[in-house]
Amino acid sequence: MTVQWGDCDPADIVFYPNYFRWFEISTTELFASVGLELPAMFKAEGILGMPILDAGATFKRPSRFRDVITLESGIESWGTSSFRVAHKVLKGDVEAVTGHEVRGWVVTDENHPSGIRAVPVPDHIRSRFD
Amino acid sequence: MTVQWGDCDPADIVFYPNYFRWFEISTTELFASVGLELPAMFKAEGILGMPILDAGATFKRPSRFRDVITLESGIESWGTSSFRVAHKVLKGDVEAVTGHEVRGWVVTDENHPSGIRAVPVPDHIRSRFD
Amino acid sequence: MTVQWGDCDPADIVFYPNYFRWFEISTTELFASVGLELPAMFKAEGILGMPILDAGATFKRPSRFRDVITLESGIESWGTSSFRVAHKVLKGDVEAVTGHEVRGWVVTDENHPSGIRAVPVPDHIRSRFD
Amino acid sequence: MTVQWGDCDPADIVFYPNYFRWFEISTTELFASVGLELPAMFKAEGILGMPILDAGATFKRPSRFRDVITLESGIESWGTSSFRVAHKVLKGDVEAVTGHEVRGWVVTDENHPSGIRAVPVPDHIRSRFD
Repeated sequence: MTVQWGDCDPADIVFYPNYFRWFEISTTELFASVGLELPAMFKAEGILGMPILDAGATFKRPSRFRDVITLESGIESWGTSSFRVAHKVLKGDVEAVTGHEVRGWVVTDENHPSGIRAVPVPDHIRSRFD
Repeated sequence: MTVQWGDCDPADIVFYPNYFRWFEISTTELFASVGLELPAMFKAEGILGMPILDAGATFKRPSRFRDVITLESGIESWGTSSFRVAHKVLKGDVEAVTGHEVRGWVVTDENHPSGIRAVPVPDHIRSRFD
Repeated sequence: MTVQWGDCDPADIVFYPNYFRWFEISTTELFASVGLELPAMFKAEGILGMPILDAGATFKRPSRFRDVITLESGIESWGTSSFRVAHKVLKGDVEAVTGHEVRGWVVTDENHPSGIRAVPVPDHIRSRFD
Repeated sequence: MTVQWGDCDPADIVFYPNYFRWFEISTTELFASVGLELPAMFKAEGILGMPILDAGATFKRPSRFRDVITLESGIESWGTSSFRVAHKVLKGDVEAVTGHEVRGWVVTDENHPSGIRAVPVPDHIRSRFD
C-alpha cells in the first residue's frame, strides 16, 4: 500500500484514524485470503457485518505521503462469539504501528429487541484459519 | 462549521473531497429544515437513499485548520425524477467554494432488474420547499 | 453532534474509524475550551502537531444515521512528554463508546536526526487544565 | 482497486466523495507513471501541492463492497498555470463514473500577500506527458 496525499494531515504524516480504516481493509483481505469473500459470507451466514467491539493501536513511527507500507494481519484468538485480529503496519522491516480489532459474530434475529443476537463463530468459518 | 485537523492535507488546506462530504451533510440538513428527517422520509417513501447523479465544485479560496465556514444550500431546480441542490461555502462574507449536487428519486422495485426504479418526486415533498 | 450518512457503513451503523476522527476533534475542542486554539498554540510552542502514540476504544452500542451523540473528553493523566485524553461518546445518558488517546509533546529540532525532539509539556500549558 | 466496506454508505453503494478521493490518488499515480513522484517534484519545483480549482463527476452506475474498479486518468488540456485531468472509473468495460479535476500550478512566494503565486507549468513537466 502507498500512503496518499489525502491520508496525511498538516504535519505531513498519516492522520491516525486512517490506520483503523486500513485495519478494517486488512481484516477483509484476511478473510478473502482463506476463501471467505465477505459479501458472500455475510449472505450465507445471515449476518450484516462483523461489529467492532474493541480496537486499539500503538504508533511507533510516522508514515508520510508516498511511503510504501505493508499490513500483516492474523486471527490472534477466538472468543465464544467474537474474535481478535492482530495487525502490524511495516515500513520495510520496521514495525511502524501495531494494533488489534475485536469483532463480534452476530446474526440478525427479528425476535430479539435489538434485531441481532450474538452466536458462536461457526466451526466451518474458524477451521479456515487453522 | 469549524475546519478540523483531519480535514486538512499536507498543504495545510482542506482536502477537497471533504467539501463534497459537507455538501451531502448540507443537503441532509436542508431536508431537515423543512421537516423531512431523512431516515423517516426514506422509510415513508420506500427509498434507500437519494443517489447522486452529478456533482461539481469550483474552489475559489482555501480554508485552513480552525477556519469557521458556513454552508448555504437550496434546491435550484426540480427534474422529473431528480433535483439539483446548489451549495455555497462562505468564509465570512466571501464565497470560498460553490458547487452542486444532482440527486435522483428512486424507489425500490423488486420487479425491476436493478431493484430500483426512478419515479417523479412526490408533490408533498416538493411543496415543502416552495 | 449528529451522525451523518457518510459516517455510516452498509450495516447502517457508524464506521468505527470515524470515532477516532471525532476523538481528534474533541481533543482540539478540549484545548480550545481552556483558551488554547491549536494553530496559535502550535506556532507559539514551536510544534507541528501533537503526535499520536496510542489510541483505543471499546464499542458498547452502535449509532446510526441522524442519531445525536455527545462527546465528553478530559485529560486523564500527564506523562513527562506526553498526555492521555479520555473520551466518552454518549447517546442520551448511555455510554456508547469509551476510548483514549495518548499524544506526545514534541518540538521541531533541526539538530536532531528525526527533525523533532520530545520535551516536557510546559507548565503554562498543563496549568490551564487544572 | 477493490471497493471496501468503509467506502460504502447505508445504501450499500460507494459514498460519492470517495470517488474524488480516488481521482486525487489517480492524478498522483499519473504523475508517478511519467517519472514524477510528487514529494520529490514538489520539492524540486518549490510548490506545496497542486491546488484544486474545479472538480466534477457524473455518476452512471453505483459500485458496491468488493467490486473491482479501474481508474483511467489523463491530462485533457493545459492552461497557462493550470491543467485539467480527465478521470474514468470502469467496472469491467462499463463506464461507471466520469469526472475531471482542474489543478493550479503555484509556487510559494514570500513577497506575495497570499504566500503563493500562479506561474506557467514548466515545459520540462508538460513534456513528460506528450
